[in-house]
Amino acid sequence: MNIGIVGLGLIGGSLGLDLRAQGHRVLGVSRREQTCKAAIERGVVDDASIKPKLLAEADVVFICTPIAAIASTVNLLIPHLSATAIVTDVGSVKAPIVEAVSHLLPNFVGGHPMAGNSESGLEAAQTDLFRGKPYVLTPIETTPPEALNTVEEIVRSLQAQVYHCHPADHDRAVGWISHLPVIVSASLVAACLSENDYAVLELARKLASSGFRDTTRVGGGNPELGMMMARYNRGEVLRSLHQYRQNLDRFIFQIEQGDWEALEQQLQRTQQGRPQFLSAKDS
Amino acid sequence: MNIGIVGLGLIGGSLGLDLRAQGHRVLGVSRREQTCKAAIERGVVDDASIKPKLLAEADVVFICTPIAAIASTVNLLIPHLSATAIVTDVGSVKAPIVEAVSHLLPNFVGGHPMAGNSESGLEAAQTDLFRGKPYVLTPIETTPPEALNTVEEIVRSLQAQVYHCHPADHDRAVGWISHLPVIVSASLVAACLSENDYAVLELARKLASSGFRDTTRVGGGNPELGMMMARYNRGEVLRSLHQYRQNLDRFIFQIEQGDWEALEQQLQRTQQGRPQFLSAKDS
Repeated sequence: MNIGIVGLGLIGGSLGLDLRAQGHRVLGVSRREQTCKAAIERGVVDDASIKPKLLAEADVVFICTPIAAIASTVNLLIPHLSATAIVTDVGSVKAPIVEAVSHLLPNFVGGHPMAGNSESGLEAAQTDLFRGKPYVLTPIETTPPEALNTVEEIVRSLQAQVYHCHPADHDRAVGWISHLPVIVSASLVAACLSENDYAVLELARKLASSGFRDTTRVGGGNPELGMMMARYNRGEVLRSLHQYRQNLDRFIFQIEQGDWEALEQQLQRTQQGRPQFLSAKDS
Repeated sequence: MNIGIVGLGLIGGSLGLDLRAQGHRVLGVSRREQTCKAAIERGVVDDASIKPKLLAEADVVFICTPIAAIASTVNLLIPHLSATAIVTDVGSVKAPIVEAVSHLLPNFVGGHPMAGNSESGLEAAQTDLFRGKPYVLTPIETTPPEALNTVEEIVRSLQAQVYHCHPADHDRAVGWISHLPVIVSASLVAACLSENDYAVLELARKLASSGFRDTTRVGGGNPELGMMMARYNRGEVLRSLHQYRQNLDRFIFQIEQGDWEALEQQLQRTQQGRPQFLSAKDS
């Protein structure tokens, strides 16, 4: 199969490595000549160009640009693609993208590989990035079944765990477990930094250990990515934040009231509820 | 030296292993006969008893009971100790303990080894638990310098990093980096569990990955310990929670207003500020 990849960063580059290893012909498009050259040198693609006409013979195209550029990229590509070409994306928010792109192009399947790590860029690309990780596909009523089947077959060949759901369900779910934690965690760092007694702040810095490190990890991540999640999944992120604030306020109330029994019970529910979100894929 | 340990759990047991290895005579006191027997069998202590009179010849006594029992335990011990015996504790909150115990016994030095892990009980005791970890000592104006020096010498022999500070500064610092994260993290689990669309909750459970796991780890910990931290460090925990809530509200406001530039700047400050709380001791 001829597979196009637009955007040759961590995700696009890693896709290229796996798909080439399977014998597909991989065609890369990047905004920068230098990235095209590096991608060919690293063996991430068979050929690369800054011009979308390279994709004229592509059967399937993965859009791996930042979220903000997905719809406009598809729009630019359309005149250059064959009439039967199937397009999919890897954006971490789905409803607004699927809404925008499916109007431009019927043969579109929304996708979200949950396989990022703290690195980015073509240099970070690696084989088997998707193995064992969730990869969500978000077909809608108008998605052609053949397009979905073709994308799903490729995704399964990456050894990813495929899930299907509606774009809105995807956005609500990742709002809870991926986007909300970023704001919760960032607020914790911000709060600690606000301590204005320098001796206490110094002491806190020295005493902070694995608990603090883990709780603040996602809040200390890529600021642009965090902003984009909130921007494109704004409704769900706000909904989850308001719910979170209620849960936080309940804890504050219990501590203010000195209702230690209620506090301990609430912490027990938390301890018991957490493992259902963890599974073998994390270990 | 004859060293007494009251409370033979993870901390008390690990202290016993290290101190015996250095040639001290270690005397253990536990509420349960079975624990005394197990401690002798495991080589954690030279002798153990449920009766505090075992400690009549102790030069230094470590109180390793749960926070709630520290002051009452010291009160029970006093009639059995020699007049020169030095007492120290390992409670994770210092001001209320130092306040209560220093009235009972002048020869008292508050201490807090920050070396716990997710396990507990004598079975979890291990050598070198304290090596490289912070160990805070909280002397006050009335603490006899000889008592402080003796405790500090023992703590240094465990290869711990010793810090000195006022009990109130300790409690404020650990409020930020240890107690606040528990409530922040537990609230996140509670919020996610509140999703009442079962399909979304199921999807969230399947998609949750390392980011969710890390952000919720301390919130899913021992409920009794979490409650005790809030109970004994109530003032500082509430102060930090109210500050946290303000930082959270600022993020919510930025997202509601769609002020993406301010949001990204705030996330940049978080990303830049976090590393000052991390150090070689965590890796």
